[in-house]
Amino acid sequence: MTAAESFDAVDVIRAKRDRRDLSDAQIDWVVDAYTRGVVADEQMAALAMAILLNGMTHRETARWTSAMIASGERLDFSGLRRSDGRGLPTADKHSTGGVGDKITLPLAPLVAVYGVAVPQLSGRGLGHTGGTLDKLESIPGWRASLTNEEMMAQLGDVGAVICAAGSGLAPADKKLYALRDVTGTVEAIPLIASSIMSKKIAEGTGSLVLDVKVGSGAFMKDAAQARELAETMVALGKDAGVNTVALLTNMATPLGLTAGNAIEVEESVEVLAGGGPEDVVELTVRLAEEMLECAGVHDADPRQALRDGRAMDVWRRMIAAQGGDPDAALPVAKESETVYAPADGVLVELDALKVGVAAWRLGAGRARKEDPVQAAAGVRLHAKPGALVRAGEPLMTLLTDTPERFERAKETLEGAAVIAPAGSRPAQQLVIDRIA
Amino acid sequence: MTAAESFDAVDVIRAKRDRRDLSDAQIDWVVDAYTRGVVADEQMAALAMAILLNGMTHRETARWTSAMIASGERLDFSGLRRSDGRGLPTADKHSTGGVGDKITLPLAPLVAVYGVAVPQLSGRGLGHTGGTLDKLESIPGWRASLTNEEMMAQLGDVGAVICAAGSGLAPADKKLYALRDVTGTVEAIPLIASSIMSKKIAEGTGSLVLDVKVGSGAFMKDAAQARELAETMVALGKDAGVNTVALLTNMATPLGLTAGNAIEVEESVEVLAGGGPEDVVELTVRLAEEMLECAGVHDADPRQALRDGRAMDVWRRMIAAQGGDPDAALPVAKESETVYAPADGVLVELDALKVGVAAWRLGAGRARKEDPVQAAAGVRLHAKPGALVRAGEPLMTLLTDTPERFERAKETLEGAAVIAPAGSRPAQQLVIDRIA
Repeated sequence: MTAAESFDAVDVIRAKRDRRDLSDAQIDWVVDAYTRGVVADEQMAALAMAILLNGMTHRETARWTSAMIASGERLDFSGLRRSDGRGLPTADKHSTGGVGDKITLPLAPLVAVYGVAVPQLSGRGLGHTGGTLDKLESIPGWRASLTNEEMMAQLGDVGAVICAAGSGLAPADKKLYALRDVTGTVEAIPLIASSIMSKKIAEGTGSLVLDVKVGSGAFMKDAAQARELAETMVALGKDAGVNTVALLTNMATPLGLTAGNAIEVEESVEVLAGGGPEDVVELTVRLAEEMLECAGVHDADPRQALRDGRAMDVWRRMIAAQGGDPDAALPVAKESETVYAPADGVLVELDALKVGVAAWRLGAGRARKEDPVQAAAGVRLHAKPGALVRAGEPLMTLLTDTPERFERAKETLEGAAVIAPAGSRPAQQLVIDRIA
Repeated sequence: MTAAESFDAVDVIRAKRDRRDLSDAQIDWVVDAYTRGVVADEQMAALAMAILLNGMTHRETARWTSAMIASGERLDFSGLRRSDGRGLPTADKHSTGGVGDKITLPLAPLVAVYGVAVPQLSGRGLGHTGGTLDKLESIPGWRASLTNEEMMAQLGDVGAVICAAGSGLAPADKKLYALRDVTGTVEAIPLIASSIMSKKIAEGTGSLVLDVKVGSGAFMKDAAQARELAETMVALGKDAGVNTVALLTNMATPLGLTAGNAIEVEESVEVLAGGGPEDVVELTVRLAEEMLECAGVHDADPRQALRDGRAMDVWRRMIAAQGGDPDAALPVAKESETVYAPADGVLVELDALKVGVAAWRLGAGRARKEDPVQAAAGVRLHAKPGALVRAGEPLMTLLTDTPERFERAKETLEGAAVIAPAGSRPAQQLVIDRIA
């Protein structure tokens, strides 16, 4: 895109600084000019801070999102066809990131069972939240990078693909995100929403379900802010013609019993085999129902497709299509240490952030985007909030290939588990709200 | 200065973004690290915007000022002695900039008459406000650059010096000002105040009178903001042990009858000869009284020293000491055009900004700091607000060496002069308030 009109960067910054709305033409220009390097990093940093502190209207946020989409390529799935020649609907899910959040792994094949194509472009982990691609890369042979043609072919053949987003989607977002990261301007809801939605809309999905996490392990610690983010993103999706629904879900405690890479794949396969922890099953089924509903499939029973092996069939074909061996043994950590319950009682809290940081420090995550991750590192939980525990029973097992990491991980976990007298009940509700 | 403690730039930005006060150690670190290039331009830009929007306390502004002073050298005039061996008091004046503001030229020698040394480190003009050094450079032979030793010697011999500030004073401010200029963060009162005061305090003057301009031709268009700036600067000066007073003065209309370079020197010499426009005389005398009072001289009559030639004597010695010929003819513009009064009546407004921009466009000022200026260009006024004018009488003469500039200068001047029916009176008050 080349903006027709040209502006002075300082005038645009001043407008937002002085609480004036930016015009469509100003937004188109500043996003494009920043991507081309005509607007300097220090100018965009000042503008981002002004946006963070003074906000953007819905119209401005929508236009900002469009301008970021226009900075790169757009995928188009409209050519996908069912075997009977009818168009194949597409549905995608995006999670704002949490601890133990492996839901994409069982979810994508589960939705594909019902004839809805799932083009799940994913990322890698940074900090305490894991990355879907890092998890799948613990499967021997599996590769994250596909060409657009390979992705399209796999969607037609298998119905589901989980792969790396190409760098051609919303390059403006990529550049802006890196800048926000070093300038204290990540936490601006209009910028978070447009960052996520520009990539999702550019991916070309027909419907989108957002899993907006709230709680200690989530990016948004506060329910009101998470709701605002969800509402902003749903509105942006609808504006762009994408059927969009958001669930606000609890991230006070990790999802399931694993936080890491290979151990999360293992747990996902249990879910696909009809077992697995109830919270992972519940959220997978609930998100599948939302995606199917958005894509126009109203009579599905996803829990049944987990039980009868249909979802597992798609999973195996999906992994194999990307070079992975679904039957290969997953890597196992060289070293482990156990954390024991300090008292008898009910486990009422198990802090998601602390578990996530511990898994990260054990080697499951990365501090900088060029760091490698350990496939087998992570934290395995032996009890979830609500469980009765006895002093001296194992609460968690810490896993790593590099035992010098245990010390800092254990420090991080201090206070993570809160045990109350028997009879206490933790307040846990997995799906907090639905925003449509 | 090397800060003892080290911080993360993003944490400092977030603190100010979230309306928390910065600690002394954070301020020392961020100013020093920015000067050394450890904090990047985009990080300082985000911080400057957060400061602009969320403010700084007096403590933070004072510490920021100290940190900028600590980034460079400090001058020390404590070794200056009168002929009787007593210490020589020093006094300095700073104007926030206006149109036709040549006050420094008669003021410095006038104050020196009374045995107070005036080390007037000055700058060049940028945009529509002129620069003192540009004006003086229209005097054949005069040079702006002195070594610290030359400056010190001249202060002892002549008592007054007007010269370029060395680049060793507050280099942090120099770098930060250039950044603020391109990131829409100039208009932050704590940053304006610390920018001005860090240089003035580093210069080592014992007392300081601030001329804070208000009105169309000033940086501050609004009296409340100008007052806030003045109060902030006075407090910073007192904290640093500098006797500081501020006057709020009117910049709705140009000072005197000239806006340019050589023509402002000419007008200044008229004032030093006991004549000149009354507003220039009044402000010069008023500022001299304030400077003398601050420096402990309580019985002076500066108007008398203009009348009896004592100020002119110091002026001639001051110009000669810097290689200038006080008797040389000043450059005269090659071309001129006259602007005539369009109607009979009272001139009630003559807009300072429009006259300043016209003078700038005629060649008296510069758009970028490396541009040259024309010594003879500018605008000569034939009437000031309050004067009765007749249709067809000359209102202004435009002067330039490059006649292609007349067109844009005349466009700028459209609407600059407002003529009302006879009997109307312009509301003009030169000194609006005094802040001590």
